[in-house]
Amino acid sequence: MKLLKEKILTDGRARGSHILKVDSFLNHQLDIRLLNEIGKEFRSRFQQDKVDKILTIEASGIGIASIASQYFDYVPVVFAKKAESLNIDKEVYESKVHSFTKNKDYNVMVGKQFLKEGENVLIIDDFLANGCAAIGLIDIVKQAGANVIGVGIVIEKGFQDGRKKIEELGHRVESLAIIEKMEEGKIYFK
Amino acid sequence: MKLLKEKILTDGRARGSHILKVDSFLNHQLDIRLLNEIGKEFRSRFQQDKVDKILTIEASGIGIASIASQYFDYVPVVFAKKAESLNIDKEVYESKVHSFTKNKDYNVMVGKQFLKEGENVLIIDDFLANGCAAIGLIDIVKQAGANVIGVGIVIEKGFQDGRKKIEELGHRVESLAIIEKMEEGKIYFK
Repeated sequence: MKLLKEKILTDGRARGSHILKVDSFLNHQLDIRLLNEIGKEFRSRFQQDKVDKILTIEASGIGIASIASQYFDYVPVVFAKKAESLNIDKEVYESKVHSFTKNKDYNVMVGKQFLKEGENVLIIDDFLANGCAAIGLIDIVKQAGANVIGVGIVIEKGFQDGRKKIEELGHRVESLAIIEKMEEGKIYFK
Repeated sequence: MKLLKEKILTDGRARGSHILKVDSFLNHQLDIRLLNEIGKEFRSRFQQDKVDKILTIEASGIGIASIASQYFDYVPVVFAKKAESLNIDKEVYESKVHSFTKNKDYNVMVGKQFLKEGENVLIIDDFLANGCAAIGLIDIVKQAGANVIGVGIVIEKGFQDGRKKIEELGHRVESLAIIEKMEEGKIYFK
């Protein structure tokens, strides 16, 4: 997606070879016009698919998923919540996720009433790196007996193995910008 | 706001006299059509005001603020982040907030580059109860030398003193639904 790549080159900042800061438009301050273009692009990538619900994860996925829903006939958005310890509430689906950034495990949780058997669920998130968060969301969709339509990602770190892991699970990944590498402050797309 | 009140009566659940669960449409699963109507209503409440930026707080405020921005000429949305301990990063504005729900203090933080002196900032959040979160956001806007245009709230617990505290600071509060009381599972609006 050309507009997104241009924005990353203009306003993103590469920190070393692995960290990309996009907090001026994607995950702290949000560029709502850009999010609309991102939403349209997700629709175009998944235009053949019946989508009943969009699932994302707090916090950065929420704005992206909410705007995107408008291009999927306003389907409900559900955001998974993060919690450090196992919740004793039996009314939630849970999956354990490892965060490499924070070097700890956390649980992602979705209330059982918000994912139903047979529903077609599109997973959307801001970043794909090692795939842990997305795989946790896929696990939750499967626990509910619902179908994963695909995983829509705004920025993929193509030099990490998240895509490989998700594809090995049999799911489709659509990333709007794929970073090949970052070197000396420069960002290279695949 | 009639549509919102109807939705609260239909899909909200009062738990005792103080807790209102609206997670089926406002803060876990999101009804994006309703959020659009909420965004329009915020615009109509603040139609006389110049708004340069919308400030909210993770996680529940993000979807509401992102959709609302579309009715304010797509101004940038900034969401404050929550952290349990003081961040050593000097590049953030911080304010300490007490959570009565979780009975602990946390810090809300906004990167300094995302709030500028003289900017007109509309604060938006899902709930107003004791006002702690909103007052933390007001504090951050003032630290930046920016102007608080007002505080837009989806659901106000009218039986708590958040509005009083914010008004005493000299700021305007616009709530789209004000709960007067909850008794025996019934919800009464002001």
